[in-house]
Amino acid sequence: MPSKQYAILVDRLKDLSYLGSALGLLHWDQEVHMPPAGAEMRARTIGYLSGRTHEQFLALDKDKLLSKLAVALKDKDTAEAASVRDVWRSYRREKKLPVKFVREFSELCSEAHVVWAKARETSDFSLFQPLLEKIVAMKRQEAEYVGYKDSPYDALLDAYEPGATCAQLSPVFSELRDFLQPFIRRIVRAAASQPSLPDLKGTFPIEKQKAFNALVAEKMGFSHAAGKIDVSTHPFTMGFHPQDVRITTRYDERDALYAIGSTVHEVGHALYEQGLPVEHFGTPLGEAVSLGLHESQSRVWENQIGKGRAFWTYFYPKLQKAFPKPFKRVVFEDFFRIVNQVRPSLIRTESDEVTYNLHIILRYEIEKGLIEENLKVKDLPGIWKAKMKEYLGVCVPDDRQGVLQDVHWSGGSIGYFPTYTLGNLYAAQFYAAALRELPRLQTDVAKGRFAPVREWLRQKIHVHGKLHSAQVLVKNVTGEELSSRYFIEYLKTKYGELYGV
Amino acid sequence: MPSKQYAILVDRLKDLSYLGSALGLLHWDQEVHMPPAGAEMRARTIGYLSGRTHEQFLALDKDKLLSKLAVALKDKDTAEAASVRDVWRSYRREKKLPVKFVREFSELCSEAHVVWAKARETSDFSLFQPLLEKIVAMKRQEAEYVGYKDSPYDALLDAYEPGATCAQLSPVFSELRDFLQPFIRRIVRAAASQPSLPDLKGTFPIEKQKAFNALVAEKMGFSHAAGKIDVSTHPFTMGFHPQDVRITTRYDERDALYAIGSTVHEVGHALYEQGLPVEHFGTPLGEAVSLGLHESQSRVWENQIGKGRAFWTYFYPKLQKAFPKPFKRVVFEDFFRIVNQVRPSLIRTESDEVTYNLHIILRYEIEKGLIEENLKVKDLPGIWKAKMKEYLGVCVPDDRQGVLQDVHWSGGSIGYFPTYTLGNLYAAQFYAAALRELPRLQTDVAKGRFAPVREWLRQKIHVHGKLHSAQVLVKNVTGEELSSRYFIEYLKTKYGELYGV
Repeated sequence: MPSKQYAILVDRLKDLSYLGSALGLLHWDQEVHMPPAGAEMRARTIGYLSGRTHEQFLALDKDKLLSKLAVALKDKDTAEAASVRDVWRSYRREKKLPVKFVREFSELCSEAHVVWAKARETSDFSLFQPLLEKIVAMKRQEAEYVGYKDSPYDALLDAYEPGATCAQLSPVFSELRDFLQPFIRRIVRAAASQPSLPDLKGTFPIEKQKAFNALVAEKMGFSHAAGKIDVSTHPFTMGFHPQDVRITTRYDERDALYAIGSTVHEVGHALYEQGLPVEHFGTPLGEAVSLGLHESQSRVWENQIGKGRAFWTYFYPKLQKAFPKPFKRVVFEDFFRIVNQVRPSLIRTESDEVTYNLHIILRYEIEKGLIEENLKVKDLPGIWKAKMKEYLGVCVPDDRQGVLQDVHWSGGSIGYFPTYTLGNLYAAQFYAAALRELPRLQTDVAKGRFAPVREWLRQKIHVHGKLHSAQVLVKNVTGEELSSRYFIEYLKTKYGELYGV
Repeated sequence: MPSKQYAILVDRLKDLSYLGSALGLLHWDQEVHMPPAGAEMRARTIGYLSGRTHEQFLALDKDKLLSKLAVALKDKDTAEAASVRDVWRSYRREKKLPVKFVREFSELCSEAHVVWAKARETSDFSLFQPLLEKIVAMKRQEAEYVGYKDSPYDALLDAYEPGATCAQLSPVFSELRDFLQPFIRRIVRAAASQPSLPDLKGTFPIEKQKAFNALVAEKMGFSHAAGKIDVSTHPFTMGFHPQDVRITTRYDERDALYAIGSTVHEVGHALYEQGLPVEHFGTPLGEAVSLGLHESQSRVWENQIGKGRAFWTYFYPKLQKAFPKPFKRVVFEDFFRIVNQVRPSLIRTESDEVTYNLHIILRYEIEKGLIEENLKVKDLPGIWKAKMKEYLGVCVPDDRQGVLQDVHWSGGSIGYFPTYTLGNLYAAQFYAAALRELPRLQTDVAKGRFAPVREWLRQKIHVHGKLHSAQVLVKNVTGEELSSRYFIEYLKTKYGELYGV
């Protein structure tokens, strides 16, 4: 009887999740608290536990429990069957990777992370280069272990966005690039003839900023009893389980908006994690669908909601009260234009929602080139500069603001970046559906009532865990398959109004 | 050839230490950062990893590697042999505990910890009572599993202070109690006729206190690059390895001295952890000798050094500068008397070095009674009050300030408290030896030169790890066996001068 066998599988999955929580905490602490001298031993600790997790994941099928369940439930349309299918998919991938390889790779990444941080600080790519070369070589090796049809990069993509391939992504990304390049040029031209906007720089004590960000998070529905907000160089969200979800943000004493954007983004992720069904903890039914889907939740809050008129109608008076200087003298319309300013720039995480996807497409092309062995690591600083010039018209002054800016590669995450653009596309499509189904959405948000849109996302997306694939879920929620149409329309409408293009 | 086999054992021990580090971090985070809703899942995570660690510890001997080494090196006088003997001793103890028992006990303690915190907050012993009853029953069971000669409490003591027994401790503790009770009464009488001392309360912003405590820690030799200072209800030190040693302290905005005493104490622990030989990480040669020895390091810094004239000759002008109000107007002699005030009080961790050991003896008697089944958990609040009245002459107004004040029992640590008094005795004996060998010790400390005494402790004690037993180490360092003489002499001299008794 599958249900009894499934219960045994669930127990094993929970044990795996405990190991996963411990690993998560080791990573979180590494970013947020660990003293510098602890790095080497931490790398070994994470390497060891990653190896053990990998072994134990493979032991899911030690007595053929998993493979028998996979056969028995193959075409069944139940939650259990969906759960088993997902574990089986991951299992088959993982089984192809030798334990020694997984452990070595994890150790390499922990080391690389520390070196990257130093290289970034000193803007010295040559420090990071040998480690990135090793990472690329090992990811190439991973693709060979896993197997692929067309491009070895497909094998890496699949780990983050199941089913995604270069054959699908490349045309979508090209189409988007072809829309964005002229659209951005038109905006830049229009901006040049607009009246200049006030300067929002000032002095914003970190403690006051922390209080404001905590308030925004709470209003959005972030549970401080089941989560925490900390500080790290590169903001991230870590959900150990729905009752302990931690985000990090970062503060600039001269710029109050710097932290808010990143907080709203991470809270979007955190709401997904806090909204997952705790009763399914440990199983795919208690997990997020994919990285692209996860990003859609952060993006819809950060952009469609968090950079909208309604959001700031509610929060701007509060911001003015918290920081009278300079906001008291800045009228809403000017503030709103500044929040939504389009400006081709160097740093992905600070870029606006219009230029953002060109940063991703650039990374996608580089990663694909590295893994398909058309590009060499040592040439990256130059390639980066050339592409930034071509796509966004900006000159990269140093590697810190160029090829060294992102944490991902130092963590071995190659194939991850494309999920950001997928997230943007999903976000726009979900938001369009939410607007159709919740006609009062904007009115509510303008009054600080975030519950309706949050609960809509929760019921439509969060509570289902991984019951459906991203493809099926998008269709269930929006009535159609993923399309770039909603995102392009959203940009055209919003920025048409703001810039008259 | 034992050396080759020993190298294999070392690899296994290192793997165990990685698990230990992860568990340590889960505990540390639970005290310092975890959001409240995370408690239940954290308990399960710690329970799971404790069970795995126990299993893996037993697997040290899976192919008889450990037992063969233990036989081969039995009477050898080498570092390897000492290391193997210690692992073998722990192994034999651990082997007697069923995996299921260890996991259940760990889960129970994680739960109990949360309940204790709540019970303490609301001063409601009845909340904690059922959990403490379970803990006592399981510790009694543990003693049966482990085995003992005279008292089941010996089996528990041995886990913290190898070789210690009630037969040895009871007379030493009685002797100490017999000295302390009249000595304290004489001090209390003398104090009543002394001129009153100025009030040191005031307003001390936490951020400024943090800076001052960090400075004290740094001067003592605490490496901030290989450590951290955080905040928790009950201060503790957690050394993941010599390059990542974390202490916690706690602040009272109205009392600047509240944090300093606890910081100096924990830094004493941390210096031991940071001074252990990193090349022996994972093996007994890289570990502290015993809890009593560990406590001797915190105590010698907290009391013999940190409450001495020399220490404050250096730091008091700095304290006056950091907090002119009220210290600018308080002369050194009055300040020094306040730092060394003897006042029978309710809370162990806030008690002075004279009354402190009566708090421990009380706990020792209660624990022994519980484990030997002469006392019942439900009677503890009453017993606590009666003994506090008898030994220290104080009335306990509520359980928060009585039986619920310490974290230890909620963590399952029964048999731990006596190591505090052992630590005090070791500390006094070590310090007497240091004064003999470093005639300039006091002069150096008065000038902020802490390196000589720190290095003396490091070379005499820290660098040896667990090479020697506590008994042998004390003899090596001081030339004689443990004696209460040095502690009693130290009190007589210091408080004779301060109170004229």
